[in-house]
Amino acid sequence: MLSSEILIRVTYSDTDQMGYMHHSNYLKYYENARWELFRSIGMPYSGLEEDNLILPVVEASVKFLRPAFYDQQIRIVTTLKSLKGARITFSCLAMNNAGDILNEAGITVACVKKSSGRACLPPKRLITILNDCINKQ
Amino acid sequence: MLSSEILIRVTYSDTDQMGYMHHSNYLKYYENARWELFRSIGMPYSGLEEDNLILPVVEASVKFLRPAFYDQQIRIVTTLKSLKGARITFSCLAMNNAGDILNEAGITVACVKKSSGRACLPPKRLITILNDCINKQ
Amino acid sequence: MLSSEILIRVTYSDTDQMGYMHHSNYLKYYENARWELFRSIGMPYSGLEEDNLILPVVEASVKFLRPAFYDQQIRIVTTLKSLKGARITFSCLAMNNAGDILNEAGITVACVKKSSGRACLPPKRLITILNDCINKQ
Amino acid sequence: MLSSEILIRVTYSDTDQMGYMHHSNYLKYYENARWELFRSIGMPYSGLEEDNLILPVVEASVKFLRPAFYDQQIRIVTTLKSLKGARITFSCLAMNNAGDILNEAGITVACVKKSSGRACLPPKRLITILNDCINKQ
Repeated sequence: MLSSEILIRVTYSDTDQMGYMHHSNYLKYYENARWELFRSIGMPYSGLEEDNLILPVVEASVKFLRPAFYDQQIRIVTTLKSLKGARITFSCLAMNNAGDILNEAGITVACVKKSSGRACLPPKRLITILNDCINKQ
Repeated sequence: MLSSEILIRVTYSDTDQMGYMHHSNYLKYYENARWELFRSIGMPYSGLEEDNLILPVVEASVKFLRPAFYDQQIRIVTTLKSLKGARITFSCLAMNNAGDILNEAGITVACVKKSSGRACLPPKRLITILNDCINKQ
Repeated sequence: MLSSEILIRVTYSDTDQMGYMHHSNYLKYYENARWELFRSIGMPYSGLEEDNLILPVVEASVKFLRPAFYDQQIRIVTTLKSLKGARITFSCLAMNNAGDILNEAGITVACVKKSSGRACLPPKRLITILNDCINKQ
Repeated sequence: MLSSEILIRVTYSDTDQMGYMHHSNYLKYYENARWELFRSIGMPYSGLEEDNLILPVVEASVKFLRPAFYDQQIRIVTTLKSLKGARITFSCLAMNNAGDILNEAGITVACVKKSSGRACLPPKRLITILNDCINKQ
């Protein structure tokens, strides 16, 4: 299983006048966590993009279970779920320090050639690494 | 059917280095569109919040079908789908000028007492208006 | 004098838990207003960028005089002040509906070749238009 | 001298299609760094706000010297400069790993009663701590 954890702290500009962290920020947090997972397997996203690959989000299904608040530390856990053709799917969790799940999401990105905008298979090295991780689950 | 349309223009700060509008912005656009729909039925969100009601997003399911680009005009269509207990669900569409669907989403908000943070039924007037609209669909 | 006005509405995601529009948004509003001014003289920013020119902000001096609030309509007035070498300076004002000034700023952008990242003179057509406008002041 | 340093990493959503970190983010980074400085003297901003104090930015003067890029680590150095009446001024620097200054700013916040929106003197404990630090400079 390929999984990674990052800790983020909710910033003041992430809050809204409801006093909650604005819900759109989860997609940013999950993106940051996703590329930390890629960094952990030696494939930083910046390198992929230099190799003419982008990985835009094509699907996101998000459940907002509890609000997050200013200055709170949040643990983001990202797990690779599947690799199908050009699509890579992750499951994402956001937890507070007490271990309560604040948010959970499934996020799918597609491999796209930066120059052409067309979907493509992931680079072989990424396929190998990702398949190895999925098979070990 | 209760439905509303707004036109937004993708700003420079909404873009990322992929050259796309960053995907997290759709949640912001849909939020803006949702409160314009509420304004159109005489219940601006600011008034609800003054009456101790907040409507945080509790679920969002989003499909990113085509990228959106800087300076593009995007039509956001929001339709009320259902009202069940404390939860109100909307379907959302984002279209370019050619009518291509760029993004579609189902978004559910919950009625919550601002002071206590607890789920509650929507105010009667809102229930009446929303049910009238749903029944006319 | 080259000047333009746009109306923006403070969105929910622009607010923070202080209940104010978060101060960083003024730089975004002024950017949007600046490119609307450029659009009004037939030089949309997207076209400049296609011609290998970018106009990053190099200096900003901002006074936050009064808070802005959710759902408030704000009038942004942008005026071209000077063109010196690669640098173009604007003065910016943000006003509420009562005409109170909420914010004022001086913002300077530099002309930079997108491909090289080096400062350059503005395109001749832009110099001509801008100088005409400055001379008429 | 009261000074603090934080390290931030430029996220993907912080970039724009110019390929630069969007300039508005510096105000967010400096805000985060400012409250880390306050945390370091035992006065976390969240506690001040619970005590009915907010510290909105009233003036910012920013020089953008070099662009910042995706995934870059940036060191933010915040130094307390002065305390005059309700106003507290900080000087802020952003540096890359090579020590090049990317951005420098002077930022002034005002002490304001959250309930009334009126300027006020800082709490005595904060005045004492801040004056001690300024006198040691």
